[in-house]
Amino acid sequence: MQKITVLAGGVGGARFTRGLLHLLKQTHPMADVTVVVNTGDDLWLNGLRVCPDLDTVMYTLGGGINEEWGWGRADESRRTSAEIAAYGRGWSWFTLGDLDLATHIVRTDLLAGGSTLTEATAFLCERWQPGALLLPMSDDPVETHVRLATDADEHTAGELLHFEEWWVRYRARIPVTEFVQVGLERARAGDGVIAAIRDADLVLLPPSNPVVSVGTILAVPGIRDALRTSSAPVVGVSPIIGGHAVRGMADECLRTIGVDTTALAVGLHYGARAAGGLLDGWLVDEADAASLPDLAGAGIRSAAAPLWMRDVTTTAAIAREALALAGA
Amino acid sequence: MQKITVLAGGVGGARFTRGLLHLLKQTHPMADVTVVVNTGDDLWLNGLRVCPDLDTVMYTLGGGINEEWGWGRADESRRTSAEIAAYGRGWSWFTLGDLDLATHIVRTDLLAGGSTLTEATAFLCERWQPGALLLPMSDDPVETHVRLATDADEHTAGELLHFEEWWVRYRARIPVTEFVQVGLERARAGDGVIAAIRDADLVLLPPSNPVVSVGTILAVPGIRDALRTSSAPVVGVSPIIGGHAVRGMADECLRTIGVDTTALAVGLHYGARAAGGLLDGWLVDEADAASLPDLAGAGIRSAAAPLWMRDVTTTAAIAREALALAGA
Repeated sequence: MQKITVLAGGVGGARFTRGLLHLLKQTHPMADVTVVVNTGDDLWLNGLRVCPDLDTVMYTLGGGINEEWGWGRADESRRTSAEIAAYGRGWSWFTLGDLDLATHIVRTDLLAGGSTLTEATAFLCERWQPGALLLPMSDDPVETHVRLATDADEHTAGELLHFEEWWVRYRARIPVTEFVQVGLERARAGDGVIAAIRDADLVLLPPSNPVVSVGTILAVPGIRDALRTSSAPVVGVSPIIGGHAVRGMADECLRTIGVDTTALAVGLHYGARAAGGLLDGWLVDEADAASLPDLAGAGIRSAAAPLWMRDVTTTAAIAREALALAGA
Repeated sequence: MQKITVLAGGVGGARFTRGLLHLLKQTHPMADVTVVVNTGDDLWLNGLRVCPDLDTVMYTLGGGINEEWGWGRADESRRTSAEIAAYGRGWSWFTLGDLDLATHIVRTDLLAGGSTLTEATAFLCERWQPGALLLPMSDDPVETHVRLATDADEHTAGELLHFEEWWVRYRARIPVTEFVQVGLERARAGDGVIAAIRDADLVLLPPSNPVVSVGTILAVPGIRDALRTSSAPVVGVSPIIGGHAVRGMADECLRTIGVDTTALAVGLHYGARAAGGLLDGWLVDEADAASLPDLAGAGIRSAAAPLWMRDVTTTAAIAREALALAGA
């Protein structure tokens, strides 16, 4: 168990990985962890490239996260964003904190100077020392949009809206008909991503959003095939507990793609490796233990354990269960 | 006296113009003032376009200036720039305050979107309402550099250094052999600049740096000719009082181009209009009244008045003297 690769979205993936690193420090101090991070939520704000999931993972692992929110930096001021708003160029639904802003400025400057997002991320991580290698799923811009099912404010039904606006401004409360990853068909997997999956000893799917986080990563050309053909076991941790999303509005996303908000349905959505899917193992919460026979019937090895990530210690225990399931 | 055009650098030009506007509100409430602003100090910092003189004029006239410094916004924090420095991308000699930063972000975003600097400046001024039309001397990038006469830190003699680094970091204490305006030969006067000079009823040269502020504006192709051929009188206010620069390190700049730091020498440097120079009138401080006969001998109408810009009222009185000299 030297090389572990995690496919992560934002808060859920970041916190799970923090627990995993906490565990490995004790059990596998020589292990290398690579986190392939969703970049489908990335967006331009005021000419700055903002990468919500990369930043959440970097800040969480590097000790700079605002723990209460799960994103952004601790103790931020809104002074700069209030000034941008005073020019009439602000975003009512997205605030750039003054500390976080520096990350976007440095990243945008690096990208403008010819760095790839992978290189810019490596540069930013030199400061934060996250203890894992963070790899953007792609260096090519991919931006997830939702197609609105109804009108909303200045937007009309049928229109494509950036995922972040739907998620942050509307809290995913407007029904949508589909997710569209703009740029995906031309995107290539980021530098090192395919190798990180192919050469891993274990691949973990943390309790990230299965549609717009893990689902977007899997949709990057080449990544799903790399997972299917990797010799590493692939073990997932359910982001659904007792029929509810652990965090965020995953139920709205699942409904849109026609998947029930249950640990069983998400496990079956990923599918058993033996049947052309992705999973060797699927860890569900104790509340969902009743689903184990159905998962076994579908060819997915599974186990039940407490999955609420209350703190680093309980999250490390979840990671321990996932590793156990991989080794079983 | 409906149309008055001012050619301004930073602090000196901004404060003079503020006094001028204060005066005109009482004496010529219908007057339109246009300020052609030096952009030779503009620079890229962390991928953001910073325009020191435009911002100083805009903030000073719009009520947002840090009065103590003469540049930047009042009550700024260094939190964002400290974060940029934590990434190893800071500038020891230039700090982007958190409020000022919003101006650079919005401007850079507008420029990236295809706006000219003139258009971006108009947009920013919609917020600040400076009470005068601010026109960049050029929409083309022109950046003043100095050629070092000696080594300094990581720089070597003969090297070109951005003017702002020489001015802000080294306080102009390193001897230089020349000023080089990179981009000047290809630059065109900004939109409306030539017309503002040609159609003016009066052109004023405020007590700005005659070399790197007014001198740079005059060096933009077409501007000096427009001044020479304008029917408007051109009246300057000496930035030198009793052999010392009113503010900043103008003496170092004058020395480099071989002009004495005296009100007389700067007046003669601009030259009498009748003799192919620029000036119809030249206002000097009472301390320099002895230079009046020499100026008259050179064909420059002149007068002596108190030229220290202590506050808006005393500065308005200086503007009144300049207007009187123009009308004499």
